[in-house]
Amino acid sequence: MSAKTTVKPRAISGFPEWLPETRLVEQRWMDAIRRIFESYGFCNIDPPSVEDIDVLASKGDDIDKEIYALRRLQADPGGEEPRYALHYDLTVPLARYVAQHFNALSFPFKRYQIQRAWRGERPQEGRFREFYQCDIDVVDIDDVALDFDAELPVIILEVLARLGLDRVTMHINNRKILQGFYAGLGIDDVVAAIRIVDKMDKIGPQGVEKALVDEAGLDTATAGRCVELASIRTPDASFAERVRSLGVRSELLEEGLRELAFVLEHVAATTQGQGQAYADLAIARGFDYYTGTVYEGKFVDYPDYPSILSGGRYDDLVGSFLRRRLPGVGLSIGLTRIFAKLVKEGRITPGARCPTDVLVVQLPGVDRQVARDCGRRLRARGFNVEVYHAARKVSAQMKYADRKGIPYVWFPPGEPGGAHEIKDMRSGAQQPASPDDWAPAPGGAEDRAPA
Amino acid sequence: MSAKTTVKPRAISGFPEWLPETRLVEQRWMDAIRRIFESYGFCNIDPPSVEDIDVLASKGDDIDKEIYALRRLQADPGGEEPRYALHYDLTVPLARYVAQHFNALSFPFKRYQIQRAWRGERPQEGRFREFYQCDIDVVDIDDVALDFDAELPVIILEVLARLGLDRVTMHINNRKILQGFYAGLGIDDVVAAIRIVDKMDKIGPQGVEKALVDEAGLDTATAGRCVELASIRTPDASFAERVRSLGVRSELLEEGLRELAFVLEHVAATTQGQGQAYADLAIARGFDYYTGTVYEGKFVDYPDYPSILSGGRYDDLVGSFLRRRLPGVGLSIGLTRIFAKLVKEGRITPGARCPTDVLVVQLPGVDRQVARDCGRRLRARGFNVEVYHAARKVSAQMKYADRKGIPYVWFPPGEPGGAHEIKDMRSGAQQPASPDDWAPAPGGAEDRAPA
Repeated sequence: MSAKTTVKPRAISGFPEWLPETRLVEQRWMDAIRRIFESYGFCNIDPPSVEDIDVLASKGDDIDKEIYALRRLQADPGGEEPRYALHYDLTVPLARYVAQHFNALSFPFKRYQIQRAWRGERPQEGRFREFYQCDIDVVDIDDVALDFDAELPVIILEVLARLGLDRVTMHINNRKILQGFYAGLGIDDVVAAIRIVDKMDKIGPQGVEKALVDEAGLDTATAGRCVELASIRTPDASFAERVRSLGVRSELLEEGLRELAFVLEHVAATTQGQGQAYADLAIARGFDYYTGTVYEGKFVDYPDYPSILSGGRYDDLVGSFLRRRLPGVGLSIGLTRIFAKLVKEGRITPGARCPTDVLVVQLPGVDRQVARDCGRRLRARGFNVEVYHAARKVSAQMKYADRKGIPYVWFPPGEPGGAHEIKDMRSGAQQPASPDDWAPAPGGAEDRAPA
Repeated sequence: MSAKTTVKPRAISGFPEWLPETRLVEQRWMDAIRRIFESYGFCNIDPPSVEDIDVLASKGDDIDKEIYALRRLQADPGGEEPRYALHYDLTVPLARYVAQHFNALSFPFKRYQIQRAWRGERPQEGRFREFYQCDIDVVDIDDVALDFDAELPVIILEVLARLGLDRVTMHINNRKILQGFYAGLGIDDVVAAIRIVDKMDKIGPQGVEKALVDEAGLDTATAGRCVELASIRTPDASFAERVRSLGVRSELLEEGLRELAFVLEHVAATTQGQGQAYADLAIARGFDYYTGTVYEGKFVDYPDYPSILSGGRYDDLVGSFLRRRLPGVGLSIGLTRIFAKLVKEGRITPGARCPTDVLVVQLPGVDRQVARDCGRRLRARGFNVEVYHAARKVSAQMKYADRKGIPYVWFPPGEPGGAHEIKDMRSGAQQPASPDDWAPAPGGAEDRAPA
C-alpha cells in the first residue's frame, strides 16, 4: 500500500468506541453479564450479523426506515445487490434461528446473546447506530411457563446488583391488564388507547387524559379511569386490589392481574425488597407483538434518557417463520446505552490501560532469557506478565509501567544465583520474591471486579 | 407484528452459524485465546464494525471489490447514502484507531482484537463472507523492537498448543531476504519475482522456475537460484548458512538473515523444538505493505486449504492516517477458517447443549421456593444451575436433563428437614448431598477445557 496521501481519521457519529482503559471496564461488565446468564443455564448463540431482508423487514411500523442493508462498494455489473441487512435487534435473529434449527434444539430453549445490533437512527443522546445488547429469552413449544416471566427479571436484577447499578428501576406490567381493563370500560380501539397511555412519562397524567378524550374519543370519566389505572405503581402484589377497587371486571383483566401478581411475588421474595422492581401499570411498550408481561428499565437519575432494559412476552414471532406455536419471553439489557451514559457522566472510572499484573524488567548486560524465563514462570501461575522488550535504562522501563498502570515491576537477578525482587508501584515498597510462589497483597492486581 | 405470512428461514451462504453445543466449544476457544493474549499483557480494543470508506478503500489491488458498504433499506429521498463500510480485516481499523487516539495511547501499543470481519468473496471452502479473526499487534513510534517479531509467534504457538492444534505449522520468512537476494542476483522487478515465488505451494518448484523464465524474463540459471532459495526450510537458524552457500551477497539480504535468525532462535528456545515453526524461504505473503518478517500458518492435513494464520511487519500503515512513522508487527488467527474446517471434518466434538452443571428438580406438591432456594445456594458456590420450570413428573424433568447433556440432577427434600440427593447422570449413581458443600467428582462438569 502507498502512504502518499493521508486520510485524516475521525469518529463516525453514532458508532461509539472506547480507549483501552474504558474498554477493559466494558469487557468486565460483559464477563459479569455472561457469567450470571450462564449461572442460570442459558446457552449462547451467535447468529450472523445479517439476516435475509425478508426476515427483518415489516416487523414494525417504523423499524424498516432504520435498517442498514449491505451493498457492494464496487457494484458487480452483471450481479445483484446482496439480499441481506444488518439485524436491528437480537430477537428477530433468535426467532429465525429457532425456526431454522427447530429439530436440533431442546425446548424450553433458553438462550443468551451478547452482540451488536445496528439502526440507522438520527444520533442523539442514548440513540446509537451500532450498540451492544445482552438478551436472555426462553422459547417453548405451545406455551412458555410463567415461571420464566418471573425468573428473567430476577436474573437481570442480579446483573444490575453485580454491576453496581443501584440507581436503575425495573417496571413490569402485563398487556392483558390494559386490554382487559379497556375492554371492560367499553373502549373500542384498545391499541390506540394503549399508545396514548404509553406516553405518560412524557406528557404526564393530564396530557394523557386530554389525549384520550381528544384523540381517542373517550368521555372524560372513562379517560379518568384509564389514568387512574396507569397511576398504580407498587413494589409488590398489592397493585391487584387497587386495580379491582376501580370497579372494572373482565376475564382478561383477572388473568393479567394473576400473572403480574405471580411475577411480582416471585421477584419480591427473591430480591427481598431491594426496591428496584415495581408493578407499574403505566408501562405498555411500543411494539404490538407483546401479548402478556412487559418489562422496562430506566435510570432513576436520568428520567429523560431512553429505556435501558426492555422486553416482554411474545406469542407469534417465531410463528412468522414456522407454522407452529412457539411463544417466547425475553429481557434485553441495553449495554451500550447504559455504559455510554455512565462514561459521559464520569461514573465509569477506568483503571489500568492494560490487563498486565507484572512488568518484568530486562536488565542491561543480562541474557534476555533470564527475564523471559521469569515471565514464563509467572504466567504459568496465572499472572498477566509483560517482559520489557529491550534492555533499556531501568528508569525508562519503570516509566512505561507507570504510564500503563501496571501495578508490579519485577527485577530478575543481575547475576546467576542472585535474588529476584518485586516493586509495588503504588506503595513503592520493594522486596525479595520468587516467581514460583510470589502472591500480590490483597486488593492487588488480581482483585478485578466490574465497575 | 402479523403472523399471516411465513418467511421460510434459510442459511445465507458464507455466513456460518453454529448450534448451541458447537458454539459452546467456539466460546471456549475464544476464551482460551483471550486468556493467552492477556497473559502477555495485550489490551483489547473493539472498534466499530464500520470505517469511513476513505479509510478502507485502496489498501490493496483486489480488496476494494470485496468491501461491503452500508445502504439504507429505504433510501431517504433527500439524504445521502452512508459513507461507511464494514471492515475487511482488523489491521486497518487498528491503524486508524492508533492514528485517531495517538495522544491517549501508551507506546509500544500492544493490543489484541477478537472481532468479525466481512468480505464479499465468492463462498468456497475456507472463504467466508463473515468471519472471526483474533489478532495481536504491536505498534510503536519510529521503530518496533525485533523482540516483538519473536514474541508474537511464541504467543500464537502457545494458543495452538492450548487448542490442541498440533497439526498446524507456522512458516516464517523475512521480506528483506527475498528482496536482498533478488537484488543481489540483478533481478530488476523484485515484486514480480516475489509474486511468482509465492505460488510455490500451488505450482511447485518446476512451475515457479518456468514462470520466472517465461513471465519475469529471468535466465534459467537465475530462476534456478530463486527456486533454490525458496526450497530452504529449517526448524532453526541453520537456514542462514544454506542461504549464504548460494553465493549471493547484499546488505539487505544479511539484515534479513540476521532478523529471521533472531526470530527463529527465540522461537526454538522457547518452544523447545515441538516442530511446528519453520524458517520457510518460500513464504512471501500477498500484501505489498509487508517490509520485514512475514508469517503464515497452514493445516498439515489440508495442504490445499487457505492459510489459517497470517501476518507480518508493516512500516507505513498507520502513517497513511498520521504523518508520523509508526511501524507495526502483527499476527492473526483465522478463527472461523480453522474452526469451520474442523467442524466440517468432524474433529470438533460438541458436548452438552448448555453450560448447566446441575438441574434442580421441582417436586410436585412441594413449595417451589424449596427448589429455588437450592438453586440459589448452588449458584452462590459458582455452579451453573437450572431450576426446572414446572412441577412436572420427575421422569419428564430427568429426560430434559438427559437431552441437554446436564451432568447432574438435584433432588431437594420432599418434606421439611428431609435430605437432598444428587444423581450423576453419566454413572447413574445417586447419593445424599448438601447444596452448601457438594462438589462434583474430578472429571465432572467443572472440568471445561477447549476442544
